Amino acid sequence: MNDALPFIADVDTACAERASRHLDTLTKPPGSLGRLEALAVSLAGITGEAFPRVSPPAVVVFAADHGVAAEGVSAFPQAVTAQMVANFVTGGAAINVFARRIGAHLEVVDVGVANALPAEGVVHDRVRPGTANLAREAAMQRDEALAAIAAGRRAAERAAVAGCRCLIVGEMGIANTTASSAMLAVLTGASVAGLVGPGTGVAGAALARKQAIIESALVARAPDPAEPLDVLAKLGGLEIAAMVGAYLEAAARRMPVLVDGFIATVAALTACRLEPALRPYLIFGHRSHEPGHDHALAALDAEPLLDMSLRLGEGSGAALAFPLLEAASAMLAEMATFDAAGVATEGKT
Amino acid sequence: MNDALPFIADVDTACAERASRHLDTLTKPPGSLGRLEALAVSLAGITGEAFPRVSPPAVVVFAADHGVAAEGVSAFPQAVTAQMVANFVTGGAAINVFARRIGAHLEVVDVGVANALPAEGVVHDRVRPGTANLAREAAMQRDEALAAIAAGRRAAERAAVAGCRCLIVGEMGIANTTASSAMLAVLTGASVAGLVGPGTGVAGAALARKQAIIESALVARAPDPAEPLDVLAKLGGLEIAAMVGAYLEAAARRMPVLVDGFIATVAALTACRLEPALRPYLIFGHRSHEPGHDHALAALDAEPLLDMSLRLGEGSGAALAFPLLEAASAMLAEMATFDAAGVATEGKT
Repeated sequence: MNDALPFIADVDTACAERASRHLDTLTKPPGSLGRLEALAVSLAGITGEAFPRVSPPAVVVFAADHGVAAEGVSAFPQAVTAQMVANFVTGGAAINVFARRIGAHLEVVDVGVANALPAEGVVHDRVRPGTANLAREAAMQRDEALAAIAAGRRAAERAAVAGCRCLIVGEMGIANTTASSAMLAVLTGASVAGLVGPGTGVAGAALARKQAIIESALVARAPDPAEPLDVLAKLGGLEIAAMVGAYLEAAARRMPVLVDGFIATVAALTACRLEPALRPYLIFGHRSHEPGHDHALAALDAEPLLDMSLRLGEGSGAALAFPLLEAASAMLAEMATFDAAGVATEGKT
Repeated sequence: MNDALPFIADVDTACAERASRHLDTLTKPPGSLGRLEALAVSLAGITGEAFPRVSPPAVVVFAADHGVAAEGVSAFPQAVTAQMVANFVTGGAAINVFARRIGAHLEVVDVGVANALPAEGVVHDRVRPGTANLAREAAMQRDEALAAIAAGRRAAERAAVAGCRCLIVGEMGIANTTASSAMLAVLTGASVAGLVGPGTGVAGAALARKQAIIESALVARAPDPAEPLDVLAKLGGLEIAAMVGAYLEAAARRMPVLVDGFIATVAALTACRLEPALRPYLIFGHRSHEPGHDHALAALDAEPLLDMSLRLGEGSGAALAFPLLEAASAMLAEMATFDAAGVATEGKT
């Protein structure tokens, strides 16, 4: 626990139990809506509302650059981070399309992009213009990581003040699977070889090089696995730190968090290590194609909603999963009871 | 092939290829939207449109009773079929809630309910008031099965004429997992013990009895596994036959079919045995908790979109999966290309 982090209360188990009992009065065989029922109960516990609402959702995309991109760990050049932010602003990226479909309030936050960005349509909350190269030095100083966490908290606060009822957090940052894989290896003790994957598309010799760079960095940076903030600062990214802050602030406000893919889940693991009370506020949107994601999910005992072999980031997989949360909420609020509908229950004739 | 069945053309592979090439020009790493990309390509092939649209969808729920309910194979009494149809009419069932969420045109069709139904709000296309008891005699005569197939075709035609662009077919019929399990055992040659499941909730001795009833019926009715219409007539249900007809008619009209759970998949398997050209028009919504569903999916080489442990029927799981089809369609139509967005592609700087 840290003064920079908000207080997170326990979820409301009494409310969750009320929702669970109500589900068994609805016109369906008990339990027959499976994980959707579990989701509804979880939303009731998170929000403290017997009939939780999740719309409108907020999608916040944090963008930042990574010094380690200079090592050639990504299939795309660093300039793509800023170019994709511009694409978010004009509405042409996947997350724009999916955010529109779910009626989301979309915000793009620059917490550390290295290159010039559009003045309009971006929240400018830049901590520094990209991290340092983790292959050569600590990616961030501890106060920079804390500043990025604070930027993330502000974004979640804005979403709550705007009336949003569910938080989806995405990221854009060329080379951020390298940073995330490094963090995950330290946080879980797993071997880099088992975690590292293609990211946006590196393969063969480039993938082997990505792995070797991470392995050397773990030795050279030597972060303390018991100190998540140390791991975040030495190996992480500004957007990853911002995600940590956004999750914590959303949970402190009893807003359900729908977690995206690999990088988002590494941020979630980091945040849960900082504050274990966060965990029940997190719902996991999808299982990514990136191999490290399984390790990150297992470390959180998380079973995601979708398994679509996505590996894009931006919050895209979580946005695709969001209609399931809406359906869970609508099931609770709108279905008729056996009594009201005059339908016989099991065994009665 | 049968004169009672419509002609189904091959899917448009040239159009599917155009969609696939377009996907690789969009601002995302190639292939990074995983199964959503495959879904978009499939929709293009089915519809013959480079930018396929799937909204509004139609949800058609076929209701019918089963004589085998008299054997006590369901946790619910037969009266529940008609009671649930009344619940569909007043809008309180799960499928009503989920159909509203996806903006679907919902139609409830009585193809064989044994008890009285509301006059309004139901399409009355009853072939007979429930099947005969398959434990004692053939469930239907062949001409009755054909009549129910024709009723299903009419429903799909109405959906197409109403401008719907995707067909979801649900069912309501107490004891229809018994009929479906029996059909599936014959069509796949699998043992009944491996297929039979709780349906709406039978367990223990009642489940063993359900299995024994099916095993005896397979011997006594002796349908020809190579004659899907014979299997359907002797063991099936009027709503299952209607689903077969609806799938075939939708495909003949190049409308994608989003298949629901266990009973819907057994109907899909039956329909594909009648007309193999149907298969590429089918998209599978979810993997049900009912154990036989895995067998039915495997027989169709089908990998469903969701895995939520649902076991409700009504079309509910398919309706929950529908937003993924809409997202796939929107991805194709709305994302910016690398060129238009000024984003560098792989390897370029």
